[in-house]
Amino acid sequence: MTEPKGEWALIDWIRRQAGGDSAAVPIGPGDDMACVRIGPTECLLTTDSLLEGTHFNLDRATPRQVGYKAMAVSLSDCAAMAVEPVAAVAWVGLPESRPMAFAEDLTAGLLDAAKRFACPLVGGDVTSWEAGLAIGTTVLARTGGTPPIRRNGARPGDVLFVTGRLGGSLLGRHLAFEPRVAEARRLAAAADLHAMIDLSDGLATDLGHVCRESGVGAEIEAVAVPVSADARRLADRDGRFPLDHALSDGEDFELLLAVSAGDAERLGRENPLGSVPLTRIGRVVEGQGVTLVEADGSRRPVEAAGYEHFRGEGPV
Amino acid sequence: MTEPKGEWALIDWIRRQAGGDSAAVPIGPGDDMACVRIGPTECLLTTDSLLEGTHFNLDRATPRQVGYKAMAVSLSDCAAMAVEPVAAVAWVGLPESRPMAFAEDLTAGLLDAAKRFACPLVGGDVTSWEAGLAIGTTVLARTGGTPPIRRNGARPGDVLFVTGRLGGSLLGRHLAFEPRVAEARRLAAAADLHAMIDLSDGLATDLGHVCRESGVGAEIEAVAVPVSADARRLADRDGRFPLDHALSDGEDFELLLAVSAGDAERLGRENPLGSVPLTRIGRVVEGQGVTLVEADGSRRPVEAAGYEHFRGEGPV
Repeated sequence: MTEPKGEWALIDWIRRQAGGDSAAVPIGPGDDMACVRIGPTECLLTTDSLLEGTHFNLDRATPRQVGYKAMAVSLSDCAAMAVEPVAAVAWVGLPESRPMAFAEDLTAGLLDAAKRFACPLVGGDVTSWEAGLAIGTTVLARTGGTPPIRRNGARPGDVLFVTGRLGGSLLGRHLAFEPRVAEARRLAAAADLHAMIDLSDGLATDLGHVCRESGVGAEIEAVAVPVSADARRLADRDGRFPLDHALSDGEDFELLLAVSAGDAERLGRENPLGSVPLTRIGRVVEGQGVTLVEADGSRRPVEAAGYEHFRGEGPV
Repeated sequence: MTEPKGEWALIDWIRRQAGGDSAAVPIGPGDDMACVRIGPTECLLTTDSLLEGTHFNLDRATPRQVGYKAMAVSLSDCAAMAVEPVAAVAWVGLPESRPMAFAEDLTAGLLDAAKRFACPLVGGDVTSWEAGLAIGTTVLARTGGTPPIRRNGARPGDVLFVTGRLGGSLLGRHLAFEPRVAEARRLAAAADLHAMIDLSDGLATDLGHVCRESGVGAEIEAVAVPVSADARRLADRDGRFPLDHALSDGEDFELLLAVSAGDAERLGRENPLGSVPLTRIGRVVEGQGVTLVEADGSRRPVEAAGYEHFRGEGPV
């Protein structure tokens, strides 16, 4: 589940209104997935939507890519909690002008992701309407060998890591990314993950969510951030710094995690992810907000609210 | 989950593509809810969407009513399976022109239904876009004392009942209906329900779904159908027969059930629903399709595909 900029207030409002019973609902609104109990079984749920013109543009994406992305976004939430996808349901608001073949391609994309991540599509709902394509997915997941990893457990002194390389997903990766479901479970098996989140809104913003939920601050070392080749290509075009893209572009769908210094040393030594990079990018500190520490030691705030320049555009 | 007219082909296509493991997924696409297993626990899932201009019109419905309806539609699927709602997630595609207060009213409506039916809203996703209001809900449910009641168990000789009174929900009931969650569980406790469905597409169409899934036909006795006062009011306006509305109008969200003749006699004698009407409307027969039997004994097909005249308009 993601929160677009400027609508965090609504999520907070829903949290306050929803109240709830923490025994039946161990994790309510505001994390990557909610957790509810059915008898002894913990069930995790996430829901996400892709809206034409906001999350994709049909001039630049095939319906099959959009279907894949819709499912992959929710699977990435499973990765963020290090839980195991069980099943998915999806619904589609289909523009009336689109032929049946379009709906089939879209569904084929949903099924591509469903098969690849062993998360069967078990139900859905398709409705025609006069507006743009809207597609919503809900994934149900189960816990693996560890409790779900939340956003709120980062502690001062923790070390921050990210998987993969960041920025520039707009150039195409946002349609074909690999949700880090297996990687998350390997990380959770290898270390005591204090907090984790998937990078949907951009590193600066998503680290800001972790800080706020955990009641801490964070420092990112500018030279440590793994900048993707796409971020460099995009920077060549638009004149911004590649690091700007790596910090602020949305939809990387990589993982950001916080672990103790001891576990950090071990993860650094034994990267359990094989060919997927796992990079130490900074640390958790007392206080609040996200601070970028440049190579020369200069410091500046980078969380979305503090550093407007980093606000990128969506990957349309 | 519902299937709009003309898109059943897509659901069939998804079913064929999805394949699946019937031990892990006891109920896949095509029923009111899917059922998946997490360890020993059966988890039921349904997803539904409401789209502006198709399912509601903001000139005639408040955002709070739309929020209530969004949740109630999925709760009605829980009723159709006679299962117990556990939790819901929702997502909203919010027109950019709408103020924060609009989103709060919409959410207040979701929470109205959540509280009334003890189904907490545990997560969600809100995104602004340039098109109309779209809202999707997913409800997770658990089995009660009985297995989930499916669409596919009707047998020749069974008796058909409906709850409530049918037709004319367009006049307002479609925004404020009461999902028959408690009634369904009382019915399941009182009788061996062979098949059940909630009436979202209209009695003729939904009975057609039950017939097709069960491999049977059905006869409806015209004089037995409980016609609502709204259906009569609408008929006064548009010159159609009240019975037409009762058979073909969508969004009654009442229950249609099939039970053995013995159970039917008992249900007729001991209506377990108190003030909610439970009316015997016909029977299940060998063959296929839905036939209307008039008081004079004349017969005609009424399933949507067979009797175009009954195609009503959506409740916009």
